[in-house]
Amino acid sequence: MVYGALDIGGTKISGALVDADGRLVARAQRATPARESGEVLMGAVSAVLDELARSPRWPALSCMGIASAGPVDTVAGTVSPVNIPGWRGYPLVERVREHPCLPVGTKPLLVGDAVAMAAAEHWAGAARGVDNALCMVVSTGVGGGLILNGALHAGSSGNAGHIGHITVDLEGPLCPCGARGCVEGFASGTAIAAHALAAGWVPPPGLAPTAAAVDVSARAGDSRALAAYDRAGRALAAAIAATIALVELDLVVIGGGVSQAGDTLFGPLRRRMDEYAVLDFTRNVPIVPAGLALDAGLIGAAAAAAGRSRGGAVVRVPALRA
Amino acid sequence: MVYGALDIGGTKISGALVDADGRLVARAQRATPARESGEVLMGAVSAVLDELARSPRWPALSCMGIASAGPVDTVAGTVSPVNIPGWRGYPLVERVREHPCLPVGTKPLLVGDAVAMAAAEHWAGAARGVDNALCMVVSTGVGGGLILNGALHAGSSGNAGHIGHITVDLEGPLCPCGARGCVEGFASGTAIAAHALAAGWVPPPGLAPTAAAVDVSARAGDSRALAAYDRAGRALAAAIAATIALVELDLVVIGGGVSQAGDTLFGPLRRRMDEYAVLDFTRNVPIVPAGLALDAGLIGAAAAAAGRSRGGAVVRVPALRA
Repeated sequence: MVYGALDIGGTKISGALVDADGRLVARAQRATPARESGEVLMGAVSAVLDELARSPRWPALSCMGIASAGPVDTVAGTVSPVNIPGWRGYPLVERVREHPCLPVGTKPLLVGDAVAMAAAEHWAGAARGVDNALCMVVSTGVGGGLILNGALHAGSSGNAGHIGHITVDLEGPLCPCGARGCVEGFASGTAIAAHALAAGWVPPPGLAPTAAAVDVSARAGDSRALAAYDRAGRALAAAIAATIALVELDLVVIGGGVSQAGDTLFGPLRRRMDEYAVLDFTRNVPIVPAGLALDAGLIGAAAAAAGRSRGGAVVRVPALRA
Repeated sequence: MVYGALDIGGTKISGALVDADGRLVARAQRATPARESGEVLMGAVSAVLDELARSPRWPALSCMGIASAGPVDTVAGTVSPVNIPGWRGYPLVERVREHPCLPVGTKPLLVGDAVAMAAAEHWAGAARGVDNALCMVVSTGVGGGLILNGALHAGSSGNAGHIGHITVDLEGPLCPCGARGCVEGFASGTAIAAHALAAGWVPPPGLAPTAAAVDVSARAGDSRALAAYDRAGRALAAAIAATIALVELDLVVIGGGVSQAGDTLFGPLRRRMDEYAVLDFTRNVPIVPAGLALDAGLIGAAAAAAGRSRGGAVVRVPALRA
């Protein structure tokens, strides 16, 4: 048996067949024609499915999961990815279901990309065996997904775990989302670089002004670079502490490009946790780097689809074969 | 069949037998000897149980739920209510279980008081039939409980829904809990009165400086009183919006003394929601007053215990570990 997976992102559309051990046994990929019409975009998805269908493992397909950049509406089965303007309320689930290669009766499961990441980490990554976990992506944006009571908590529209847009500063700067003082405005790669630049930081020679370049300066002891990561770590700490207080967590997993800064991010984040997670039941929750890297979207889409097919309404990510 | 319930508060210890319709068919009450030793306190609990046991409905007892002021540890079965210093890590579950009137094999279920309120509102109050709800108590403190996927989400230690101590202002004032900018520091009755007083508000003649008196002034148009409720409403809005973003909610229920201010609180709260709940899936979640008043703790304790004993018919909660 293999699980099918699609991962829809702003730069590429990937597909895979994933085995019961969480390994990719076939994969296909196309560049996302992000500025094209909805039908051209769907053509790229179809090409990925066609290519997967030529795999010798395709006849063993048992389900199909789709991870997509958000917003998604998992009830309606539609996607409106911010960076793919040709799709607004696009009925991706229905269109994938109609693909001629798909076995009759296969009903694709749609999840947001950060929710997929959480499913992947729970199935085969750092949150394996953990019943209550927050898995975050800290990158150009900040997102997350929740595992609660051993199951993926996707929320009724599939957007639960949306930690990047919770307010940690009531009177903070306006966020493009329309609210104020969102976590993303402190902790995204964009925010880290912007804050460092505003403080007078200059990228090291030959480097573009990115969060990765701020990390290089921070490791060299640049105080403005260190301050930008501390500011990010503090906002993340407040938001993570809030999440623990609201649902109780056993583990926090952080992936995404900004998490590649390692101790530059995790150091201040863990120190700041001591300031914001002070209740007995919120203290000392481990915060660890993600266990999976590039393929988390595909693995998570597969895990979620496999979990739904086994668990009914609640998506219980399957146990890995021993 | 009836469900037994105890509600442990700083001023009174109540007990009841609750029928399958959520009605109290017997009740007993003692003042909490809050400054006495743990054993004197337990004596008051025993007296309540003894009195309940004289009810003709007692032989139909099927389970026993205990709601307690927090913190509680539902895994250990212990309570450490802030306002009852004689109990610190007190094994209340074990002691109630040993009470001679309790049918052999009855294993009491412990929940925090705000979690009990959520169970009560879900069973017989404003959140009846709702699958995903946040139920809040806004009073001397601010607390809450969550219904997720149709079940009580008590959290692994029974403290989930702890919305009063999430940070909405990173650099806000230090909270007695040790963190900064907690919701409770803006929205508790104490905070509302303190903020109004600091702004120069003077209580109406004959009234003590409480949130209720601030409400009287607000209704008369006092701008300092109105500002104190707006400040509370804004902090509650940011915290509620964060909770919706994290878990997705269909309804928010607010009870507790401060909620008695009605439109004085709900008006600014709902207006401020438009500023902080701006994502498609976070917008327009109804916020309503609690449906149950004084007996919510007892009804919720009964509901939670009944839910466990039925395996999910009414309220599913995790079983206590022995």
